[in-house]
Amino acid sequence: MQPQPVIAVLAGAQPVEGLAALERQAEVRVTDAAGLPEALAGADILYLWDFFADGVRQAWPAAGSLQWIHVPAAGVEKLLFPELVASDVVLTNARGLFDRPMAEHVLGAMLHFAKDLGRAAAQRQQKQWRRYATTDLAGASVLVAGTGSIGRCTARLLTAVGMRVQGLGRTARTGDPDFGTIHASADFAAVVGTFDYVVLAAPLTPATRGMLGRGVLVAMKPTAVLVNVGRGALADEAALEEALRNGTLAGAALDVFETEPLPGNSGLWELDNVLITPHLSGDARKQLPALAEQFADNLAAWKAGRPLMNVVDKELGFVAS
Amino acid sequence: MQPQPVIAVLAGAQPVEGLAALERQAEVRVTDAAGLPEALAGADILYLWDFFADGVRQAWPAAGSLQWIHVPAAGVEKLLFPELVASDVVLTNARGLFDRPMAEHVLGAMLHFAKDLGRAAAQRQQKQWRRYATTDLAGASVLVAGTGSIGRCTARLLTAVGMRVQGLGRTARTGDPDFGTIHASADFAAVVGTFDYVVLAAPLTPATRGMLGRGVLVAMKPTAVLVNVGRGALADEAALEEALRNGTLAGAALDVFETEPLPGNSGLWELDNVLITPHLSGDARKQLPALAEQFADNLAAWKAGRPLMNVVDKELGFVAS
Repeated sequence: MQPQPVIAVLAGAQPVEGLAALERQAEVRVTDAAGLPEALAGADILYLWDFFADGVRQAWPAAGSLQWIHVPAAGVEKLLFPELVASDVVLTNARGLFDRPMAEHVLGAMLHFAKDLGRAAAQRQQKQWRRYATTDLAGASVLVAGTGSIGRCTARLLTAVGMRVQGLGRTARTGDPDFGTIHASADFAAVVGTFDYVVLAAPLTPATRGMLGRGVLVAMKPTAVLVNVGRGALADEAALEEALRNGTLAGAALDVFETEPLPGNSGLWELDNVLITPHLSGDARKQLPALAEQFADNLAAWKAGRPLMNVVDKELGFVAS
Repeated sequence: MQPQPVIAVLAGAQPVEGLAALERQAEVRVTDAAGLPEALAGADILYLWDFFADGVRQAWPAAGSLQWIHVPAAGVEKLLFPELVASDVVLTNARGLFDRPMAEHVLGAMLHFAKDLGRAAAQRQQKQWRRYATTDLAGASVLVAGTGSIGRCTARLLTAVGMRVQGLGRTARTGDPDFGTIHASADFAAVVGTFDYVVLAAPLTPATRGMLGRGVLVAMKPTAVLVNVGRGALADEAALEEALRNGTLAGAALDVFETEPLPGNSGLWELDNVLITPHLSGDARKQLPALAEQFADNLAAWKAGRPLMNVVDKELGFVAS
């Protein structure tokens, strides 16, 4: 009988789902960030249950026996530091599990603006009965930046409600099953001007950082609405705030920010045309059992010597499908 | 050449769309409610451009030559007074034109609650970063009361986003193309307890008035959300307010009320779990050209002696399809 693998579990406030089952299959060391170097000594696997936590890079010198890191999240940019990228350590993520909640969040945010439900809420507080114009999503156009599983699920949902969807990806192509036309990211500013909505659902990589800059913002329709469920740093946040303030674009639903929690002195808090959610579009809380199950499945594969699912291409920064 | 028909147009604050074109085909008398008796004398057609206006019943004694009333709205309950119902005057409405905006309003209202976007807006005002749990519409169940064109369009949209949709109508049946199963209104309280969402999209008739009463409210899931885009009087508003206050149901998106505008002393204004919109889900403002065109098409049919579209069954209170 093979020895049990050693798993370091970086846990936060949230109890580790399925811990008892895990302990039957492995030597499990639950730790916080401070105890990570000690937990990593001799560990085969690092399970980043608290995927918002930092500390892996600092603990890296202790990770000499590590073979695999699993992150129960979609974005893995915090782990793409040079030492890990250059190592043989395999990185896997929770690709797929956040797709549907995030797609629904995007749709809800769009309808929030199309039907001006923020105004409705404000009028209720004032006990004010005043009709206002609204718009429809049917026939409206949307550009989804990011052609991974989140972007694709979003594209399918928005198509299902009657929107005209196109994508933005690394390379231009046509005939895509979910997007039809995909424009090249390099052409973002050139194509963005015809779209009523723009969704950022891309991973944060050196290639995507700051992709929504001033050049793109000034090219957007002044009636356009932005939804960012990817990463805050996909956008130039200062330029975005300025654009929202001066009417270069009509509104934004932002679930992610350059710094999280969003600092109290950010001007974004003050803008009535911004819907701010605290990085919850993927709704990890509801997904805890599924996230635990996904790791357990991958652990079973690892123990059996089968290929792991959702292996991140550490050079690209995401799971290449 | 036949004499031009005489059309009395009851107009309000909103300019009459397509008036010039109308005046080329008819003798047009634009009036407000006060001038309606005078305008109706000798008129063939009454065009209720200001469909929120009252006054037709009061002016009825002057309507002796009237043959046709067109209402560019969906609900016609104000016109179903005994003298008109008993008369030969044909009543037509704008069936179809409000379907899609209303269906989108319903979807937006549901996502507002599923994703708790009201909390997001409140937290923004407080500059507060606090994660909270959300739910998905995928797989959630919804009962749509009203199997006319609005209810059907709503059912199709909610099905398209992955909800499990059933209907509530006059008679129970299965195999409906939009609803699958339709329950009988008489069984509302008996069946409502399994649904996550309930939508009221029925016309207001003697049979539907007060259909959402205490018996139905207490049978609903405490986590359920109500959306009313039909008419306020479909619900027992006092009982509804009480249920929202004491947690018998989780939330409500109300676009229509027993009295409109909703009086300032209504307790509904004070409830944070209520989304109030001022009777705008059909978004008539955006539809003005289409509404004008629909009447023009019907006028052309009337002048040519062809059957009118969207003739209301005055006994049932809606266009029977």
